Amino acid sequence: MPIPHFALPPHDPEAVAGAVARLRESFGERCQTGASIREQHGHTTTWLPSQPPDAVVFPRTTEEVQQIVRICAEARVPVIGFGTGTSLEGHVNAPAGGISVDFHEMNRVLAVHVDDMDCTVEPGVTRKELNTHLRDRGLFFPVDPGADASLGGMAATRASGTNAVRYGTMRDAVLSLKAVLANGEVVSTGRRARKSAAGYDLTRLIVGSEGTLALITELTLRLHGIPEAVSAAACSFPTLAAAAETAIAVLQYGIPVARMELLDALTVRAVNAYSKLTLPERPLLLLEFHGSEAGVAEQAEAFGVIAHDHGAEGFEWAVRAEDRNRLWQARHDTYWATHGLRPGVKSMSTDICVPISALAECVTAAQAKAAELGLLAPVVGHVGDGNFHVLLPVDTAHPDEVRQAETFICWLNDLAIAHDGTCTGEHGIAQGKAGYLAREFGAEALTVMRAVKRALDPANILNPGKIVDLGNAGPV
Amino acid sequence: MPIPHFALPPHDPEAVAGAVARLRESFGERCQTGASIREQHGHTTTWLPSQPPDAVVFPRTTEEVQQIVRICAEARVPVIGFGTGTSLEGHVNAPAGGISVDFHEMNRVLAVHVDDMDCTVEPGVTRKELNTHLRDRGLFFPVDPGADASLGGMAATRASGTNAVRYGTMRDAVLSLKAVLANGEVVSTGRRARKSAAGYDLTRLIVGSEGTLALITELTLRLHGIPEAVSAAACSFPTLAAAAETAIAVLQYGIPVARMELLDALTVRAVNAYSKLTLPERPLLLLEFHGSEAGVAEQAEAFGVIAHDHGAEGFEWAVRAEDRNRLWQARHDTYWATHGLRPGVKSMSTDICVPISALAECVTAAQAKAAELGLLAPVVGHVGDGNFHVLLPVDTAHPDEVRQAETFICWLNDLAIAHDGTCTGEHGIAQGKAGYLAREFGAEALTVMRAVKRALDPANILNPGKIVDLGNAGPV
Repeated sequence: MPIPHFALPPHDPEAVAGAVARLRESFGERCQTGASIREQHGHTTTWLPSQPPDAVVFPRTTEEVQQIVRICAEARVPVIGFGTGTSLEGHVNAPAGGISVDFHEMNRVLAVHVDDMDCTVEPGVTRKELNTHLRDRGLFFPVDPGADASLGGMAATRASGTNAVRYGTMRDAVLSLKAVLANGEVVSTGRRARKSAAGYDLTRLIVGSEGTLALITELTLRLHGIPEAVSAAACSFPTLAAAAETAIAVLQYGIPVARMELLDALTVRAVNAYSKLTLPERPLLLLEFHGSEAGVAEQAEAFGVIAHDHGAEGFEWAVRAEDRNRLWQARHDTYWATHGLRPGVKSMSTDICVPISALAECVTAAQAKAAELGLLAPVVGHVGDGNFHVLLPVDTAHPDEVRQAETFICWLNDLAIAHDGTCTGEHGIAQGKAGYLAREFGAEALTVMRAVKRALDPANILNPGKIVDLGNAGPV
Repeated sequence: MPIPHFALPPHDPEAVAGAVARLRESFGERCQTGASIREQHGHTTTWLPSQPPDAVVFPRTTEEVQQIVRICAEARVPVIGFGTGTSLEGHVNAPAGGISVDFHEMNRVLAVHVDDMDCTVEPGVTRKELNTHLRDRGLFFPVDPGADASLGGMAATRASGTNAVRYGTMRDAVLSLKAVLANGEVVSTGRRARKSAAGYDLTRLIVGSEGTLALITELTLRLHGIPEAVSAAACSFPTLAAAAETAIAVLQYGIPVARMELLDALTVRAVNAYSKLTLPERPLLLLEFHGSEAGVAEQAEAFGVIAHDHGAEGFEWAVRAEDRNRLWQARHDTYWATHGLRPGVKSMSTDICVPISALAECVTAAQAKAAELGLLAPVVGHVGDGNFHVLLPVDTAHPDEVRQAETFICWLNDLAIAHDGTCTGEHGIAQGKAGYLAREFGAEALTVMRAVKRALDPANILNPGKIVDLGNAGPV
């Protein structure tokens, strides 16, 4: 699965040197060009090659981001936003060189409106930092992609995660944005009203655009009240189909589960070993319920009845916070746990999302395909959304193994598309899945996406080589 | 408040006559040019003048919509989508003439996926028709703007309504769209997966674009399970502030109310007279709870405690379907009820949406301003979203009265913007609020919206004169 051939802006060393000199003049030590810091900002947690930028700049204000973009726009040098670098499809790579804009010094919580249950933050604030800040106010921010990612990065990549079944994704969590455009101007996409019918939805246009349309410098986010009660359950099933059907019934009965995660037997084995648990090594649903004391008890009971009807076995409740945390920490550590399946190698993580009715079939087919290719393929999924990950422990020193993994990932993308699903539920397109966008949406949608990109960034300086290719674009 | 001066495509009678002749050739009796049918399709339920189209065409398929758009594109004649004509800000007006595309013959439910809780429909299906179709499957479609609007129109205008506090707006309800672009091509914006991180969010770009970017010809919508139990409550408060603070507390405690509506004392008086009720003529909250039997009882009890703490008086429960329906019918009839405040005149309806903490202050200020201008101004609001309507019974035969009402609406738009809110929570921009878009978002957002419009509809044939003005646009 080679990266699609994107027509990139020419990498002009003289233009880059000029831009870097101007940036250094303005930003001093906050403009870095050392090899290791550049490496770190081009680092990619996938099969893609790392493509470091020419320099890394650490702005502190929206005005400084404007300054960076203006300098780069004049020199026609690419600008790549950088949050915590935990994206998985080459989002932060610099295939045509350029300047990485690292937002971690823009990390202030600017306002919390308790009555309105919203807050305004700078993009470098991470989700855990925000939740620590909010805890005393009785509020929390629910989107949880696992990694302690920055909120700007999460918005740029339309992140979601385990809580999305109840609380939605970044698409739902962002009320409005302030962002710097390719021409250096600042755009405000909305206000603090909960909803609006005013004009085009620029907020949702920028959310998920992976830094290709604008650089986010301020976010206003919806918050939720910390629930009075929380409980968790782990429940094993004889088959994947039984677990998936249980999940479907839970949604149909309207049980407002806060999380509902599926682990296949192989993942459970890895998790048991890594987290010293003794879960039955069969398909597992891991659930969390939020609500009042009585509400949570009622949800749990209703779930129990449904699960029992679907042949559930090996039921475990966790009401105490420490037991819950142990279970969910184990879930969050899945990525590391799967490394233990083949000590010494790293996992290549991919994701697809399908209509929930197709989930069991797709997971089962994925397991069979992996076996055919001689790959270990532990599966973990946000079953309430039909979204699942395959974590392939692959020895990247062996090109044959990497090729097999790539073959598997391509096949999986097509499987999702064939089932009316998407080649990525939450990881994004960037470089890794750019070849699948036209297959998923059809040529006309790509033409529209290109037209939008060209309208907002005609010189193609914002994260070029990601999502859509301007070089090959024709007029709409 | 004059309609902003939009640079419109020239109304070229020869071009129009040519396009109409071609349409008549293809569509026969399904292309109508009679005065009354044209009048009806330019009809507007607001202070704006009616601007009828030159002809009305009734397509039956996506291909026929493509054919209409291609004919109009060649002749440079405007194309205006038409659902049920219940929009309020001049959405269906034809200020530069052109062809109204009436979708009411595209009214098939194409698929219902019970396990995935979604459906695919043509744009002419109304929300009530869909819910009738779904009832036997245990599912329902929650977005309820009051009128029995078409789903295509509701998506095009980003409609919401009473259920939005729990179930979201059309922004949340639409999984994907099929739409015809200005060049006659068909774009698919997504698939049936619950979420996706694949590329730009074209679904959300088209939702709320009021027919200015594309004509929706197919919608895939999220559905919900019909709740096991439903109950309703009506609860009076000594002041608007007490009612608003109760609503804030309800949200903070995470009580998952399905609807929470505020009626001011004047509206209650109108409703009592129209619907033969005896509600206390004080600020009223009208609530609906969805869930299990026990869950609904618990929600109602928790609400009762909060309301009591805020000085609630005159509490009424309605658990029986007929009592509930009576209350909610009264709420839905508010528009008609307010006509009774001045027999013989119609109400001009406007809406704004503000952060909920500003709601009581804004409603109170609106009441005072209306009194100052000598206007009756009953208020009804989706208080959980901070969204409220003012229904001004105005004698349109008296230009002075209309002018006072316009003054009030302008003042109200600015009030919302001054409180970090939006000039329209759900009615939309179209013509009526086009002058407020730049005030709300700033000039740069308007420039981006224009750039997007120009990228997708460079000849400005899709519903010209609405939302943004291409004529005055400069390059981004």
